[in-house]
Amino acid sequence: MTEIGVGILGFGTVGAGVAKGLLENGDVLRERTGLDIRLVRVADLDTTTDRGVALPPGTLVSDARATIHDPAVNVVVELIGGTGVAKTFVREALEAGKPVVTANKKLLAECGAELFALASERGVDLFFGASVGGGIPVIRSLRDGLAGARVKTIYGILNGTCNYILSAMEKDGGRFEDVLADAQRLGFAEADPTLDVDGFDTLHKAAILAALAHGFQPDVHSLPVRGIRGVVSAEDIEQARSLGYRIKLLAIVKSGEDGLELRVDPTLVKADGMLGSVSGVFNAAMVQSDLDDWTMYYGRGAGRLPTACTVIGDIADAARNLAAGTHRPVSMPCAAKAPKIKKIGDGVSRFYVRLSLRDAPGSLAAATAAFGENGVSIASAVQRGAKDGFATVIVLTHEAKRSAVDAALSRIRDSNASGGEPVLFGIEDV
Amino acid sequence: MTEIGVGILGFGTVGAGVAKGLLENGDVLRERTGLDIRLVRVADLDTTTDRGVALPPGTLVSDARATIHDPAVNVVVELIGGTGVAKTFVREALEAGKPVVTANKKLLAECGAELFALASERGVDLFFGASVGGGIPVIRSLRDGLAGARVKTIYGILNGTCNYILSAMEKDGGRFEDVLADAQRLGFAEADPTLDVDGFDTLHKAAILAALAHGFQPDVHSLPVRGIRGVVSAEDIEQARSLGYRIKLLAIVKSGEDGLELRVDPTLVKADGMLGSVSGVFNAAMVQSDLDDWTMYYGRGAGRLPTACTVIGDIADAARNLAAGTHRPVSMPCAAKAPKIKKIGDGVSRFYVRLSLRDAPGSLAAATAAFGENGVSIASAVQRGAKDGFATVIVLTHEAKRSAVDAALSRIRDSNASGGEPVLFGIEDV
Repeated sequence: MTEIGVGILGFGTVGAGVAKGLLENGDVLRERTGLDIRLVRVADLDTTTDRGVALPPGTLVSDARATIHDPAVNVVVELIGGTGVAKTFVREALEAGKPVVTANKKLLAECGAELFALASERGVDLFFGASVGGGIPVIRSLRDGLAGARVKTIYGILNGTCNYILSAMEKDGGRFEDVLADAQRLGFAEADPTLDVDGFDTLHKAAILAALAHGFQPDVHSLPVRGIRGVVSAEDIEQARSLGYRIKLLAIVKSGEDGLELRVDPTLVKADGMLGSVSGVFNAAMVQSDLDDWTMYYGRGAGRLPTACTVIGDIADAARNLAAGTHRPVSMPCAAKAPKIKKIGDGVSRFYVRLSLRDAPGSLAAATAAFGENGVSIASAVQRGAKDGFATVIVLTHEAKRSAVDAALSRIRDSNASGGEPVLFGIEDV
Repeated sequence: MTEIGVGILGFGTVGAGVAKGLLENGDVLRERTGLDIRLVRVADLDTTTDRGVALPPGTLVSDARATIHDPAVNVVVELIGGTGVAKTFVREALEAGKPVVTANKKLLAECGAELFALASERGVDLFFGASVGGGIPVIRSLRDGLAGARVKTIYGILNGTCNYILSAMEKDGGRFEDVLADAQRLGFAEADPTLDVDGFDTLHKAAILAALAHGFQPDVHSLPVRGIRGVVSAEDIEQARSLGYRIKLLAIVKSGEDGLELRVDPTLVKADGMLGSVSGVFNAAMVQSDLDDWTMYYGRGAGRLPTACTVIGDIADAARNLAAGTHRPVSMPCAAKAPKIKKIGDGVSRFYVRLSLRDAPGSLAAATAAFGENGVSIASAVQRGAKDGFATVIVLTHEAKRSAVDAALSRIRDSNASGGEPVLFGIEDV
């Protein structure tokens, strides 16, 4: 039986999970691949901390470079993260003609085109299934299962921290800050939660999905992103709930004749729909293609073993290809194919607006008139009680251009009717 | 660019979808596979009916055998169905050394072991992604994404007709017969709905999933199966709803230390859980593994293009392997590995029981005593009104062995308290 040696760079949470999986489930892998896939090296600067995995003696080393070039290592697994040494090591492995498996979303989102070009030039595999959604197989499905389909729309709930916080805020009616503190205590949020709660983690993943679906490398730094911190309040969650919706932080990749919507934004989805049912730390991606209509992939978006599961699936692919003396042709991100990215104002959807208006005659009329004057048709406008001279009005629009809704809100903000900053979220009816 | 020729056997609904997909999305396939995958032949006895797909002149022929042996055909796609000529043709293609893609669940469920042995012997691929769940990638995920994981549990909603009927019965409170007639008018149910509504279609799919997850070929004819016809009533759907549950026809593949539960049964699942949210003709499979915990795959379980999408994904895999001169090692179903299939009475879960009791002193006490005497602990027992001298009592049990619950029901049935046949469904808390 052909033996394939695996070298892991980075013995953190996921690295320990992959090591554990390879050590304990080698028999399963042998049966399903016909190959003897063995863990031969794990490289980490810290060789002393106990990670709860008993590596065979001599496996754990501190020298990543030696691991890459070790003749017993046939597949290199990069689990260091970031775009520093991780990038150097990935390049070095590819240049040495060794296939690489990585879960590094930042590296892929920022340097994907360069690394795929190198992999293609050297004729080796570069797999990245765990870079989006941890344990959910959305990357694999876009790459393989939907190989013959044109992707139209992707909605992703891709950050477990945000989804946990939004679910908990809805369940207990809590404030963002209190729920975040709870999540940090429970280990569901980092001490510095910026990457998660301000949407950047989701944005990196959205960029990777867009690249895979549409064959170009988006510039992540120029894409519109809103997170949930300072954006989604307990009040809006409750208002949405009463209307049959939930607010989810969505990655939106929606292609239309006039360009591609590619952004991250808190969005109302149907409470009893498939995305609305995704609660807590779970992730999901819904994909619509010209052939398959809607499919959805759901699971744990992070965590030691779920992420390791996807990494090991990629290792199995790379090992099979190595054994067969082949590799996956790479569908190269290609600048020439880059679609026009829509400005956020050009996006068309239904919208949820929460207005604070002076509780005075003519206020509601002035506000609704502002929508009409900007060509925005109102589906419903409901006043939800008044307090201290101000009334809350929830407006749901029919389909409209976001810039038109913004213009209406600007008009209302500047009018005598205004009693505070309006709140705006898109609605996607899934 | 390497050219791979595809020959389709069977120009029915799915055959026409695959032809359409290959003709219209060849550019997408070229980009993603680096191969020129071309439709060269479609064989069907009926060469005159218009299927709404404009085949290039000369493509449609009546001779399946000539198509298999046509040197321009590199991949054979079997979409005839059944275990008659379909089996002959699949064998013939494999014997000729040509990879086969099929969506034929009956063939796989009944003759899988034999066909995989032949494919393995000839060193060619036999792919069957669309045989379970049409457009949902559960086969691919079990085969590839979960290659390194031990599967513990699979719950599948795998029959769109049944799920449509159950969803419609819940929504409109309708009777089974009326909803079935509607479904037949709408094209969601066959004129003879037996295979669907009596659970056999789901059972074939359950057997394929069990084979893939546990590496053996179950004998479908000996497995426990209940469908929805004459089993699930509007009353039980309503009682379940009031308790926060929905009744779904589930394929259950659950491995435990004392054997494998493998059966098809209407089952209560949480109304607001992921499976409970799957409505109408959609399908879903939830899979729990030792690494990935729960993942779910959701989409259209049938239909021309969704099924074609999965078939084309398999064609792309086969084409890539052909071009690389390799094939997928087959994880052979192996009789020696066959787990003990649990008798239905040995299954352990919570249960829903609807009792009709005489509205007389001592009836409820006698009924609840029957549970206790058989070691079944009751979680709740609620009387839901009485009429014409009979009272309906809904009992939810704690975890219990099904045989113990059956013994309790048998005791109640034979007692003076009984006012009619008890109804029993399992509860799976997903």
